[in-house]
Amino acid sequence: MDTIIRNTTILTMNAHNEILEHADILIRDDVIAKIGPNLAETAECAQIIDGSGKLVMPGLINGHCHVPMTLLRNYADDMDLQTWLFDHIFPVEDRLNDEDVYWGSLLGIMEMIATGTTCFADMYYHMDSIASAVESSGIRAQLSRGQTCMDTGSDFSGNRAMQESVDFVKKWNGAAGGRITAAMAPHAVYTCSADYIRAIARHAEKLEVPIHVHLDETATEHEDCLKNHGKTPTAYLSDLGLFDLKTIAAHCVWINGDDMALLKEKDVSVIHCPASNLKLASGIAPVPQAHSMGLNVCIGTDGASSNNNLNLWEDMYLTSILHKGNTRNPKVITAVETLRMATVNGAKALGMSCVGSVEEGKKADLIMVSLEKPHIKPLHNICSALVYSAQGSDVCMTMVDGRILYQDGEFRTIDREKVWYHLEKVCNRLFG
Amino acid sequence: MDTIIRNTTILTMNAHNEILEHADILIRDDVIAKIGPNLAETAECAQIIDGSGKLVMPGLINGHCHVPMTLLRNYADDMDLQTWLFDHIFPVEDRLNDEDVYWGSLLGIMEMIATGTTCFADMYYHMDSIASAVESSGIRAQLSRGQTCMDTGSDFSGNRAMQESVDFVKKWNGAAGGRITAAMAPHAVYTCSADYIRAIARHAEKLEVPIHVHLDETATEHEDCLKNHGKTPTAYLSDLGLFDLKTIAAHCVWINGDDMALLKEKDVSVIHCPASNLKLASGIAPVPQAHSMGLNVCIGTDGASSNNNLNLWEDMYLTSILHKGNTRNPKVITAVETLRMATVNGAKALGMSCVGSVEEGKKADLIMVSLEKPHIKPLHNICSALVYSAQGSDVCMTMVDGRILYQDGEFRTIDREKVWYHLEKVCNRLFG
Repeated sequence: MDTIIRNTTILTMNAHNEILEHADILIRDDVIAKIGPNLAETAECAQIIDGSGKLVMPGLINGHCHVPMTLLRNYADDMDLQTWLFDHIFPVEDRLNDEDVYWGSLLGIMEMIATGTTCFADMYYHMDSIASAVESSGIRAQLSRGQTCMDTGSDFSGNRAMQESVDFVKKWNGAAGGRITAAMAPHAVYTCSADYIRAIARHAEKLEVPIHVHLDETATEHEDCLKNHGKTPTAYLSDLGLFDLKTIAAHCVWINGDDMALLKEKDVSVIHCPASNLKLASGIAPVPQAHSMGLNVCIGTDGASSNNNLNLWEDMYLTSILHKGNTRNPKVITAVETLRMATVNGAKALGMSCVGSVEEGKKADLIMVSLEKPHIKPLHNICSALVYSAQGSDVCMTMVDGRILYQDGEFRTIDREKVWYHLEKVCNRLFG
Repeated sequence: MDTIIRNTTILTMNAHNEILEHADILIRDDVIAKIGPNLAETAECAQIIDGSGKLVMPGLINGHCHVPMTLLRNYADDMDLQTWLFDHIFPVEDRLNDEDVYWGSLLGIMEMIATGTTCFADMYYHMDSIASAVESSGIRAQLSRGQTCMDTGSDFSGNRAMQESVDFVKKWNGAAGGRITAAMAPHAVYTCSADYIRAIARHAEKLEVPIHVHLDETATEHEDCLKNHGKTPTAYLSDLGLFDLKTIAAHCVWINGDDMALLKEKDVSVIHCPASNLKLASGIAPVPQAHSMGLNVCIGTDGASSNNNLNLWEDMYLTSILHKGNTRNPKVITAVETLRMATVNGAKALGMSCVGSVEEGKKADLIMVSLEKPHIKPLHNICSALVYSAQGSDVCMTMVDGRILYQDGEFRTIDREKVWYHLEKVCNRLFG
């Protein structure tokens, strides 16, 4: 089945960040088959979309999320981390069941789809429920069962999280026509022993899946690791061999120059989560330095309980302005660099060379942004307009694998009223 | 003429930050006449608005703007301040005429209305054009002719800016049924001589209008003032007697503890502009300290050429999370404190006790926010949801003086196509 988008502006995010005007896009099944002016209508053409006054760009890639935590959005704010976690978040998480996680995930996916995210990396538990929500919604995701050994003995092979993680990889990696991939996820240096991390790495190597880990999120994590292991979290995990596997590391707020050199050497991607880091008072990550050292920096929202939204446009905006103010240099992290972080860099981090740019042969994971809004005019510079002025609500179409998931406020694959109904039931049980 | 809003949630922003559920609001002409459950329909009732699934709150007050600079949105970004100003902004501003400023102002007002701002404080020139745009659009504003003596002699009475400023106050203060008030605006310590500032203060006192000034925006301004006058910008302006008049001071990035004590003593309101301060790399204002010392802190967008939008929701979000991260304290600047900054504090700063909260007897300057969105659910905490999750695009109705200016994506007082048409002409002339 073919779809043609006519007469649009394309932010390609190809190697030259080319912008095409008055271009057409032919999408055949799940692939961008052809880009050019005035493409001929094909015999298989099922739909033609008018792209005038709009911009097509790669779907955004959210590099770090805990999507079911959408249930805890605005549940506990403006308090210190320990109170937040131990008095509010953990007690609710203890009560979560598979059904809660399914509807919570679908709610978060709705928000992501409506704001132009076509792929996200997630770490949580009740993973079958998340995978089912990804499968039914049509979004793309790399999913991992977060693993800790905080309350387990030393027999890692018998550890429930490890077994669930391995089972999850075997069941879901490559599922939904390749839209779902799996990773393994040692939660963090402060929740996993060295042996446990080594065991996870062995499993991941054998299963040929990448690693998703929290890294150096808080000053406490950094200082405790120095005290307990005589190394920074980055050096510690590197010495354990974790970074010999393809890895995405979320947060990296407290990494130093040596850490950055090590992450660069090991080709570990840094997932910058500015909203969460600010809101939880973790600090401000050294993103300009990491970027200038050539690390692959990407952008993530973190969970909706610490952000409190999954709208990657806000994190793009933050990424682009926060570091200018913090380093007192208005030239760091330009608009186009920010856009690359949220698209091609994310695709590279997740090992998904098939997405991240609008180019012939790539998967048709793309979004349309309306330009006919007061806050986008005048349109002096497209990249600046997208990063500094556009809002998540300017996304008017979201497509994954050539399939429209969202258009003009309507969800095509998710029954909104059904989600509202189940959400109310879930919330009554959990919080009522 | 009466309007009734039925069965809604009201964030009153009264002294107790009360939130009312299932409440009705009776609006008679330009005033909130009655609030309560199940209000009887009046004989003069011209329209009933269904408020279910929505929230009514005071319209937002943008404490610092240069609205015609919307024409320069995304025109020059990611560069140092001197290059930005001297090579890009000033040359265009030199070419601006009255018509450009009218259409640029109307464009900025459209964005503000669509994102729930009902009142803004502005400083620019071609002021008759801005006032005309405010008058025709129906928004409320406090306007001032920015004054400098950079390129004038010592005869201040003959100074063109001074004359224009005085004329503007006489012509427009209290115009449009009181929707337009005037102020006088010495631009900043580095663009005005001491004598010039004293002369402005004398005129303002005589005309009984307040002051709008840029204060301590950059480290350069702070250091130069110390070098040239032996005092901080705050102490310098205070010694010149400027703060004996009612004053709003924009930015205040580099104020120290003594400055804050002085601003508190003089009852000067601080307009925090976090997006502009970050994007232009000015720095991060000491807002938590100012707030805890009891200063009246408000929020502003600054112009769209340094933000690059006039969406106060983004500046609210920034205000609420930036200082948590910067001070490493997640408890500073709570959601409700942020909401007060953008509403009641703004009203107090502008001497408009008639607006800023939804209470009987106040002017009907209010907005409706849709709660039936994925990113607002679940609704655990209304203030958190508004500050941390809601977007400008969630505003579904904006009312000033009891008149609906915007509803469900449609502008009631502004002809959108006409603005687009003139905007294109203006941009062709200025940039083409």
